[in-house]
Amino acid sequence: MKLIIGNRAYSSWSMRGWLAMKASGLEFEELVVPLFDEQWDEKREGNEFAAGGGKVPILWCDDTVIWDSLAIIEYCAEKSDPGIFWPEDEGARAMARSMACEMHSSFTALRREMPMNVRRRVDDFQMSDEVRADIDRILQLWAQARARYGGTGDYLFGEWNAVDMMFAPVITRFLTYQVQLPKFAAAYSYFVLHHPHVVEWIELAQEEPWEIEAYEPAK
Amino acid sequence: MKLIIGNRAYSSWSMRGWLAMKASGLEFEELVVPLFDEQWDEKREGNEFAAGGGKVPILWCDDTVIWDSLAIIEYCAEKSDPGIFWPEDEGARAMARSMACEMHSSFTALRREMPMNVRRRVDDFQMSDEVRADIDRILQLWAQARARYGGTGDYLFGEWNAVDMMFAPVITRFLTYQVQLPKFAAAYSYFVLHHPHVVEWIELAQEEPWEIEAYEPAK
Repeated sequence: MKLIIGNRAYSSWSMRGWLAMKASGLEFEELVVPLFDEQWDEKREGNEFAAGGGKVPILWCDDTVIWDSLAIIEYCAEKSDPGIFWPEDEGARAMARSMACEMHSSFTALRREMPMNVRRRVDDFQMSDEVRADIDRILQLWAQARARYGGTGDYLFGEWNAVDMMFAPVITRFLTYQVQLPKFAAAYSYFVLHHPHVVEWIELAQEEPWEIEAYEPAK
Repeated sequence: MKLIIGNRAYSSWSMRGWLAMKASGLEFEELVVPLFDEQWDEKREGNEFAAGGGKVPILWCDDTVIWDSLAIIEYCAEKSDPGIFWPEDEGARAMARSMACEMHSSFTALRREMPMNVRRRVDDFQMSDEVRADIDRILQLWAQARARYGGTGDYLFGEWNAVDMMFAPVITRFLTYQVQLPKFAAAYSYFVLHHPHVVEWIELAQEEPWEIEAYEPAK
């Protein structure tokens, strides 16, 4: 299996797909294709990239291709153990899938105005009302999951699962843009940032040679 | 089970969730809550609606709530027969999930500039380059699925499945805005528009009393 990802520093969707692959325990090789790089612009014309419409992540498994992070999560769940990704309790699983889907389709203000950059801290981020509303909704979802299904675990549904993977790049943004969080959300964010897969992703991002203006926050 | 949906004429995400429920064969009651209506504005404060952040569709099953159309599809697949929703072949299923996910997160220009209205024809739609690019990508995906997995069936993967449900509201837009289609896509669109569930949705939409300016195309 081969996972094609963008820059670790900037590509939040790549991070989600990669976290899913790591959680599955399946063996895979990686290919990092930097965003906004000539190498990328050339290679996206090739077959390996064309499948995703020029977007990452893309997972190749023999001649099967999966070009969306949520689809990669479902694929990993099928190929390894679904229990790693989704709660066994039916109600919890329904909530988990709804939350993962909402992250997949929504929070556009947060995604637009707070681009991910796991190598950077921003001191004076001016939060728009739209971003504030996105964050309020995210915190509401987290609180509901934790209260109902978190139990004594560290994560939203107790154990590390697909929903934590979907929100991990939101949590790195909260750190980058120094968003004030209520205590339960700060604790949860701490645990996510210290999950070994997240730690590994961020460490590898530090070593990347590229710095791309479009993803750097305005100074 | 109870499915909360928006106006049938305008709410494309409601249509997807409803098509999934119909395909599952599960019994459910419906509650139509019109968009931009005072009744809606009041009721969205209530518990039944709050779960979805004010968006539709929302599926309630006892105290389990699912508030996203793609999550509703996965829920229906689990509660009925997964084979109704996703192809059994692993490669086909991976492609189907990727396509459903891409529809779920992308094609924002098409969604913004071509709002769904199954009751209307627009004669002189001016297509922007962004919408053209979205449509080109959609036709490319359809062509790939049909060529690889369509066989002798009428739909993208042969039998009617989740991907057809996800694209059905795109096809009603192609009709509304009179988009020229290549032959294979025109044939596929015809079959979708004549699927009994799609026919039923559109017929019920004709009878709705509401007409809401924000969803009507500029004249």
